[in-house]
Amino acid sequence: MTDNSIHAIAMPLRGKGLGPAPDPAEDEHVGSYGWSILGGDISLPAAVLRDSALRHNLDWMRGFMDAYGVELAPHGKTTMSPELFAMQLEAGAWGITLATAPQVRDAYRHGVRRVLMANQLADRANMAIVSGLLADPDFEFCCLVDSAANAEALGAFFAGSGQRLRLLLEIGVAGGRTGVRDEAQVREVAAAVARWPQSLALVGVETYEGVLKDEAGIRALLRRTLATLKSLRAGGAFAEDRALLSGAGSAWYDVVAEEFAEVARDAGVRVLLRPGCYLTHDVGAYREADARIHASNPVARKMAEGLRPALQLWACVQSRPEPGRAIVGLGKRDAAFDAGLPVPALHYRAGDDAPRATPAHWQLGAMMDQHAFLQLQADDDLQVGDLLCFDISHPCLTFDKWRHLLRVDDAWRVTGVVRTCF
Amino acid sequence: MTDNSIHAIAMPLRGKGLGPAPDPAEDEHVGSYGWSILGGDISLPAAVLRDSALRHNLDWMRGFMDAYGVELAPHGKTTMSPELFAMQLEAGAWGITLATAPQVRDAYRHGVRRVLMANQLADRANMAIVSGLLADPDFEFCCLVDSAANAEALGAFFAGSGQRLRLLLEIGVAGGRTGVRDEAQVREVAAAVARWPQSLALVGVETYEGVLKDEAGIRALLRRTLATLKSLRAGGAFAEDRALLSGAGSAWYDVVAEEFAEVARDAGVRVLLRPGCYLTHDVGAYREADARIHASNPVARKMAEGLRPALQLWACVQSRPEPGRAIVGLGKRDAAFDAGLPVPALHYRAGDDAPRATPAHWQLGAMMDQHAFLQLQADDDLQVGDLLCFDISHPCLTFDKWRHLLRVDDAWRVTGVVRTCF
Repeated sequence: MTDNSIHAIAMPLRGKGLGPAPDPAEDEHVGSYGWSILGGDISLPAAVLRDSALRHNLDWMRGFMDAYGVELAPHGKTTMSPELFAMQLEAGAWGITLATAPQVRDAYRHGVRRVLMANQLADRANMAIVSGLLADPDFEFCCLVDSAANAEALGAFFAGSGQRLRLLLEIGVAGGRTGVRDEAQVREVAAAVARWPQSLALVGVETYEGVLKDEAGIRALLRRTLATLKSLRAGGAFAEDRALLSGAGSAWYDVVAEEFAEVARDAGVRVLLRPGCYLTHDVGAYREADARIHASNPVARKMAEGLRPALQLWACVQSRPEPGRAIVGLGKRDAAFDAGLPVPALHYRAGDDAPRATPAHWQLGAMMDQHAFLQLQADDDLQVGDLLCFDISHPCLTFDKWRHLLRVDDAWRVTGVVRTCF
Repeated sequence: MTDNSIHAIAMPLRGKGLGPAPDPAEDEHVGSYGWSILGGDISLPAAVLRDSALRHNLDWMRGFMDAYGVELAPHGKTTMSPELFAMQLEAGAWGITLATAPQVRDAYRHGVRRVLMANQLADRANMAIVSGLLADPDFEFCCLVDSAANAEALGAFFAGSGQRLRLLLEIGVAGGRTGVRDEAQVREVAAAVARWPQSLALVGVETYEGVLKDEAGIRALLRRTLATLKSLRAGGAFAEDRALLSGAGSAWYDVVAEEFAEVARDAGVRVLLRPGCYLTHDVGAYREADARIHASNPVARKMAEGLRPALQLWACVQSRPEPGRAIVGLGKRDAAFDAGLPVPALHYRAGDDAPRATPAHWQLGAMMDQHAFLQLQADDDLQVGDLLCFDISHPCLTFDKWRHLLRVDDAWRVTGVVRTCF
């Protein structure tokens, strides 16, 4: 049922991080313009995705999921890029996870036909957006519910539209985000959904373990989620033969796979894992998670290498006003800063054969909206006009600073472009 | 020379924060769709601009600048919105300040013909962008220079294109951002610019006092900037009869006006102030600045009222999983969080006559990418599906989360839309 022929909608390609081209540049031709980062063709700062790392990460995650017999519904809110959704679906993903109704609509517009909205649908205008998409019988959709009040509102709305909305009961923890806290809430929500048999269908159970930080607590939540699935299934609460069981952000998907493995090969259950950041990875929280996974998960341990950082930012040194300081044209308008500042990786000067690794003591001390403050030693050889490549932390809040990112080969030649729909 | 006929380029109006409309909705018709926030027409979260507050702020700043005889070149990086640029120019602004070459190009595309780029132009691709715009003889442009190395690179590049680039010498402070630190650097940069008389023209002096936090230090920097202007002028360093003198971010423009007032009525000097956040204001750092300005500046003291917050966010309560907690559909994807989280202002439930002010103890404790955690008391009357309106801190990092913002009247009916070009 899923149509994988994702298509970019023709739009002018404009703004930062592009090279010289006909106005407007056209997506499909970007790879033929001969743009090169090192050749100085691209207006900096620019966001780039390394083709080789994307391919590696796609293959890695497919291998991991296959080993557990679980399916991948990568969280698309990370990139909100139709071209990257297409790559993920082509690499075997079951569908795309999204966070909001407008995100779902954007993905649908670009050809995505199977969506898990890992969020509640609470306001009338967003219900109307989903209702509009459900008019397509080939569009497969479900979202979360965690309160009787929300179930009643959804039941009434979709009764009005003559449609049936598929729902996953969200399991949460005290002190956490959304999700029912206890058995009483489970029963209350399930009963509310059951009051609207024409317009609501309970089809599974979901949790987001990423609100917790300790493995023991995470495993306990996952076991409670699995137990709830079994109990609801035994009670005939599900409207479909195959129940959905979903968990996993980008940091603990290994533990979710381990805990849900028990039902992964059960024909009556479909296990969907939702990591989103694996595609581009980072050198912050997700590198840390990757190290933990490789140290502890038996499937990951057998794989030669972990995920690779695929998303990087190139920027230009614009000022060296003091011996120990360089000002770089890269700021909060270009990169996430909530989980660590960008990390210098490479230094390139026009005429060099290739970029060189930056010394470890080159570190950003601060960022403003459009500037970064790089700390150096007085005799370091860094000049105005030199280029720097940065790794990043937190892909989600870097992607949403860009309307397009350039795909590059390992020599930093531009091979294409991907768009975002934030 | 400035053409104020800013025009929106036809583009599909898609994504979050919109109501039901033909696909794509068209900008000029948005005000006629009858959309209403309180009527539940708009997909939440949504960013709104109150028309009455925008008008008030435009008038306020025009009155303030006129009182000092200085001119306004509002920093456009804040909003990057062609429609808001047009409102600023119609309200008397001399031109628009921008931070990067792609921003300048976007503003030019929408009709802006006078730009102060308050930044260095350091990489070749960005020089090429500016060179392309300079082909229009009606386009008036200048940017900053703070190093001989950058002056040499610019001189060579624009010699190659047969154009002459207008430059402001940037004055900075030790421990600050860009800008020359001392007299020796002033002389060095001025001499480098003078080596390229065909391709470079020094036309003034600039500083950004916002890197400092104490008034005494700011006044000292402004006096040094003014003294540098006088000294360069006396030495015949400027290429034009009327030298530009520019300063002021959004927090200290009053002090800049006071310090630069001495030359504001001098026919040989044009004083340009560059606040950007005054247009929408906020309830964070800029409200604090406004209080200081009203307490200390004689012109502001005479004005009845300060600036008003014009930019707000509406969102929907999606979960009340615990007595003291509500989860709201508003996150780091929607609002700035680097200078304080959004602040609840109004609460509305379908059927109410009007929104009510939220109790002071309703505060956000945290935000994730797509969710906010609202702290309440257990017996507070807040339900799933209720709407909340939030004030914000830091307009710049809120604007760049939205491709369009809705204009609204005081009854929260949508009167139009503005786009952003990030």
